[in-house]
Amino acid sequence: MADELNPSRRGFVASAAAGAGALALAAGSATAATEAGKDSPASLAPAFQGSDTLKPLPFDPAKLTGLSERLIRSHWENNYGGSVKALSAVRKRLGQALGDKDLPAYVYNDLKREHLLRTGSVVLHELYFDNLGGGGQASASDRQSIAQAFGSFDAWETEFRRIGAGLGGGSGWVLLGFNQHTRQLENYWMADHAHAPAATMPILVMDMYEHSYQMDYGAAAAKYIDAFFQNVNWEKVNARLSAAGATKA
Amino acid sequence: MADELNPSRRGFVASAAAGAGALALAAGSATAATEAGKDSPASLAPAFQGSDTLKPLPFDPAKLTGLSERLIRSHWENNYGGSVKALSAVRKRLGQALGDKDLPAYVYNDLKREHLLRTGSVVLHELYFDNLGGGGQASASDRQSIAQAFGSFDAWETEFRRIGAGLGGGSGWVLLGFNQHTRQLENYWMADHAHAPAATMPILVMDMYEHSYQMDYGAAAAKYIDAFFQNVNWEKVNARLSAAGATKA
Amino acid sequence: MADELNPSRRGFVASAAAGAGALALAAGSATAATEAGKDSPASLAPAFQGSDTLKPLPFDPAKLTGLSERLIRSHWENNYGGSVKALSAVRKRLGQALGDKDLPAYVYNDLKREHLLRTGSVVLHELYFDNLGGGGQASASDRQSIAQAFGSFDAWETEFRRIGAGLGGGSGWVLLGFNQHTRQLENYWMADHAHAPAATMPILVMDMYEHSYQMDYGAAAAKYIDAFFQNVNWEKVNARLSAAGATKA
Amino acid sequence: MADELNPSRRGFVASAAAGAGALALAAGSATAATEAGKDSPASLAPAFQGSDTLKPLPFDPAKLTGLSERLIRSHWENNYGGSVKALSAVRKRLGQALGDKDLPAYVYNDLKREHLLRTGSVVLHELYFDNLGGGGQASASDRQSIAQAFGSFDAWETEFRRIGAGLGGGSGWVLLGFNQHTRQLENYWMADHAHAPAATMPILVMDMYEHSYQMDYGAAAAKYIDAFFQNVNWEKVNARLSAAGATKA
Repeated sequence: MADELNPSRRGFVASAAAGAGALALAAGSATAATEAGKDSPASLAPAFQGSDTLKPLPFDPAKLTGLSERLIRSHWENNYGGSVKALSAVRKRLGQALGDKDLPAYVYNDLKREHLLRTGSVVLHELYFDNLGGGGQASASDRQSIAQAFGSFDAWETEFRRIGAGLGGGSGWVLLGFNQHTRQLENYWMADHAHAPAATMPILVMDMYEHSYQMDYGAAAAKYIDAFFQNVNWEKVNARLSAAGATKA
Repeated sequence: MADELNPSRRGFVASAAAGAGALALAAGSATAATEAGKDSPASLAPAFQGSDTLKPLPFDPAKLTGLSERLIRSHWENNYGGSVKALSAVRKRLGQALGDKDLPAYVYNDLKREHLLRTGSVVLHELYFDNLGGGGQASASDRQSIAQAFGSFDAWETEFRRIGAGLGGGSGWVLLGFNQHTRQLENYWMADHAHAPAATMPILVMDMYEHSYQMDYGAAAAKYIDAFFQNVNWEKVNARLSAAGATKA
Repeated sequence: MADELNPSRRGFVASAAAGAGALALAAGSATAATEAGKDSPASLAPAFQGSDTLKPLPFDPAKLTGLSERLIRSHWENNYGGSVKALSAVRKRLGQALGDKDLPAYVYNDLKREHLLRTGSVVLHELYFDNLGGGGQASASDRQSIAQAFGSFDAWETEFRRIGAGLGGGSGWVLLGFNQHTRQLENYWMADHAHAPAATMPILVMDMYEHSYQMDYGAAAAKYIDAFFQNVNWEKVNARLSAAGATKA
Repeated sequence: MADELNPSRRGFVASAAAGAGALALAAGSATAATEAGKDSPASLAPAFQGSDTLKPLPFDPAKLTGLSERLIRSHWENNYGGSVKALSAVRKRLGQALGDKDLPAYVYNDLKREHLLRTGSVVLHELYFDNLGGGGQASASDRQSIAQAFGSFDAWETEFRRIGAGLGGGSGWVLLGFNQHTRQLENYWMADHAHAPAATMPILVMDMYEHSYQMDYGAAAAKYIDAFFQNVNWEKVNARLSAAGATKA
């Protein structure tokens, strides 16, 4: 097992207030960050703050094709919403736990695992809902971008659906992602919220946890995958490909 | 269990050659991509190609502080190198398997799990070696950027080291990452190569697999963490913060 | 990465027919085992055979309290049944793959992971259905056995339910198990079918995959846990405690 | 996310003192169990007690073939010993946490994950050391028992070694186990201490965490596997086969 760190070596000396080269943080956190930088303990710093605010659905949940309003509302409120609240609570707990020098590092890491898991759940759910609400028709340029990486658009779709089919009855995510390090566009299998390809920007995200479909389709995961594809918002996919630097301007 | 996809619905029709809006792929893959787009099966497309070429160490392995040349060479050649070769082999296998319509989707996903795992191993190892070879001194602006997110530079370092200590005797990675979706700079615990925070660009990467230190330090993971910090190349960290959009120009 | 085994060292020499001290295998497999022992390659040996036969439900699925026939039938046929068929297919694939000396060991292990996962799914589902169909009333002696380990029966039930609540919205199992090595009765959290406490006999098994309840209760996992407890067959629990050697005769 | 349990429903009412049908607990715990059953809170019950006592090595660590005393002592003291202490601490924390009704169930489960992980580490390490110290020669009856399940003894050894090779450079365990539910003798891949086949008694256990070999062999996992086989204590394997009911008396 790990040797514990020498508590006397590590402190919580407040840093000088940030000046040039400061972090380009999200607007809401920027003020708090400055406050924290001045005179606050680590527990108030942005990394240890939480927010219980859910991001609204970007579409009318009553108007998707083949996915019921009841399913989408439950998914958004209970599963996404549950993770938003859990992530918020875990971040605050971490701020407290960081100051507890008697806490074993492996117990601290039990919370950090929850932090990783909930971060994945919140981020992936927001990206998932955000790439729904469209008409399911990829533009010619999107089809070309994807075909260039996978040989053909159909080869891509075949692999994406197949990964989803293999996750049916279990849990996980299917991801079309652009890896910033390798500059490659690939599909990825992810068994839970804590899994992800390193250094990769999500382009298209499909939730395969059973809460994504059991209420409408029972165990028939393939029918859900069909419905998912009918609702993909390809304009968002296009914008993500561009933002990730995967396509030339 | 998953319903299998209807094989008659999915084919491998070659797409039209890519034109405007084409993928900005790495140079080496671009030609192959065009070829694949024209007339080749999916198995030759970039997503299913492999390369056995290792990225050279960006420093002289004989000159690190407290990390032996034997350790670094073995780590680079056997562990990183092993994953490069495995990833290459797995990508080719996936290209073949995609065309095998009788292969159960869950067996295809067994390979996709290996794909995720090896992608993480290759990318994280390259980023790890790339952030070693420096003098371990963070610049004032880097310290400020980090302090703004964590309350103080020491609070950040305390958490980063603690996650590492908790992984001692096991395996995994410690990551300082900038989440592109939440615009937050955070430390993450990762239990293996397949774990990662979604939509996050790695800023500082520390390998905690036992092959990173057992040869030099046996079970004394804390001594390795000390040595790691003495060799951090903060210029690379600075460049990654900037490239990820975490710091203002 | 792993060094590959020297193929010339390992062969598939058929062993002599088994005599005294032979394995006390399940009846159905015994004949095949003898055959395999005589003159067959490894691929026909019991360890590499599969069976697609589902174990029937030990109760009338129309008569549970608070769990619908539709839910139970879908769970049994699609989720349990899917894993039975997948395990059978994977075992046969392993038999073939074992003879393929060019297959990388890590690809072989991708199949062994599926083997572990599906073994867990099949065994845990059979034990789960087998401990349902009862009236939910523990006998005085069962309550005493459990109270002796947990301080009180209520303390046990509180922890068992809490683990279940924490798995709501995700996936996994809750297990009351008797560890044969430590001789302790404990509750365990398991995140998927591949997790289990080492050397432990399951005593009471609760499925927390969403296919166990979404169809009836949506995201309301706590209502499912209530329903589960109303249907526990404590006679089975009692028999398992005794068979595991946890209670004195 | 999970609904939390109704705190008013669950209490910690002490049960009546245990009588007939009481748990056949390990000797050391029996007294405490009785005490706890009488008048103590759950936190003192056996399920929430810890012990920091390491089980001594069953052999002279200076006398193994090809595994150094330094390696074995470090493995036993730091890795096994670390998990013994961690498990002890986690069990006590669980006892305290169980009474904290405001603790979210998912945070409780973070500790239960550590509980599962450490239980696996302690049990598997004890079984691992216990099946070392022998001469590596299986008896004719053991070879027959294994051959009956795998087709031949060599087929078994080939698969067992191959799983180990595939885990080289990573972490995990290889297990020959007898599944009490399916009555089958099989080899299993396990990626970490929390993995195990359900309802299975370990027969032969090989540690593939890098702390098992890096100190002696660096990345050459195959050399460690050779050394492991030379030190297997087959008398222990024989006794476990018999105790698990895998062989006829």
